[in-house]
Amino acid sequence: MEENRPLILISNDDSIDAPGILRLVDCCPENADVIVVAPEVQQSGKSSAITVGAPLRISAKPDYRGARIFTVSGTPVDCIKMAFHAIVPRRPDLVLAGINHGSNSGCNVIYSGTMGAVTEGCNQGITSCGFSLLQHSLEADFTMCMPFVREIIAKLLANPLPDGVCLNVNIPARVTPLGVRTCRAARGYWTEEYRKYLDPSGNPFFLLTGRFVNHEKDATDTDEYWLDNKYIAIVPVNVDYTDRDYIKPLGEYFDL
Amino acid sequence: MEENRPLILISNDDSIDAPGILRLVDCCPENADVIVVAPEVQQSGKSSAITVGAPLRISAKPDYRGARIFTVSGTPVDCIKMAFHAIVPRRPDLVLAGINHGSNSGCNVIYSGTMGAVTEGCNQGITSCGFSLLQHSLEADFTMCMPFVREIIAKLLANPLPDGVCLNVNIPARVTPLGVRTCRAARGYWTEEYRKYLDPSGNPFFLLTGRFVNHEKDATDTDEYWLDNKYIAIVPVNVDYTDRDYIKPLGEYFDL
Repeated sequence: MEENRPLILISNDDSIDAPGILRLVDCCPENADVIVVAPEVQQSGKSSAITVGAPLRISAKPDYRGARIFTVSGTPVDCIKMAFHAIVPRRPDLVLAGINHGSNSGCNVIYSGTMGAVTEGCNQGITSCGFSLLQHSLEADFTMCMPFVREIIAKLLANPLPDGVCLNVNIPARVTPLGVRTCRAARGYWTEEYRKYLDPSGNPFFLLTGRFVNHEKDATDTDEYWLDNKYIAIVPVNVDYTDRDYIKPLGEYFDL
Repeated sequence: MEENRPLILISNDDSIDAPGILRLVDCCPENADVIVVAPEVQQSGKSSAITVGAPLRISAKPDYRGARIFTVSGTPVDCIKMAFHAIVPRRPDLVLAGINHGSNSGCNVIYSGTMGAVTEGCNQGITSCGFSLLQHSLEADFTMCMPFVREIIAKLLANPLPDGVCLNVNIPARVTPLGVRTCRAARGYWTEEYRKYLDPSGNPFFLLTGRFVNHEKDATDTDEYWLDNKYIAIVPVNVDYTDRDYIKPLGEYFDL
């Protein structure tokens, strides 16, 4: 760890056991120091959840290609917060998350633990970016996207993002991407969300399932559109969720 | 339950045991049907987390003032999703969450389970609103704010919000509010976030603590400003987190 080298902090939501996080380390430039702080266990769907009132523990793991590896017994946001509090030796230049096994396009950004980590990095004032491959399997093949990921990381290191904006990068699976496109998240939601079961006593329980329905199938400026067309879709995400255009109309709504 | 009566779905993140959720029921108009679907246990800080791969159970509880009460063994978002999937007899006219015991102003909206439930309702296309009192205690006194909450609910029932926008209502504690103001969320973040302990074996663990630092102390258009001045602060939240103003500059950033 040398003071004058860029420092990259990496997390994810699939846990330290997911191959995607090591592929992200592989995409970092050789002149950078890399520290991985990942959840001990699977944290998919944890959004920006934080652990309140329960203890968090840090464990050091063996290095990987010069990167130092730690796990935290919490959520992706816990990982970033704990990293800042107790692990990183200096302020990181970049916070990255992924490469996620599965999509975080459309409204999935809301539930994504990957993007929870990214949002947290951004809120701490660091240029932050999440990467997700549209292939859920742990055997997902990252080779075709890695040159693009490498290039995006190099760009982010050279040119910090504006304060309050982070990136959600989604990558088509099983193809060499045709390029990258910047766009907005498609509106849509999940449907047929639960399957019902009966336990041995005859009491019902439910497991999450369902499929994502894109409500904007005809739009040509969304992440879903570009992913369908084999491009990497990059959506800028603002960590201030205020709808600024609606503040004034809302004042009229309340007769103020 | 009558088809022609408005239906209000209520959740929270403090769990069914928190008095604030019953005070929210108390604020609903008598001509509305009310169904409460709340987490079984405390879910503060759960953001928009969903339960993936673990069973969810629904329990029916005794009615409260005509409102039907259910609990779900998951997060606030799970409560809303399960309510839509298996509990409500028809599409609700309104999704409400709270009244939260504690602030969800500033960047707290990101971590808030209360606002997770609200975001989910909004994503389902329903007018949705979260209420939070700036008093963390379970003995918090809601009486002074209830006339305002009642009025906001009546307004929302009469005038649905635009698609994709929901409300984050924060209420000053221990005063009769001077009125309501619409505004944006103050930028800021939590600092000094963890306290370190040693377990009996001498291994460290950490518990979340810290304090919120408002980075915009001089701004007069933020929720923190109006709360400091004893007003109820209402922030419109957009559930599309895309920074639309930055899509084009980001294209230039990537030389597209």
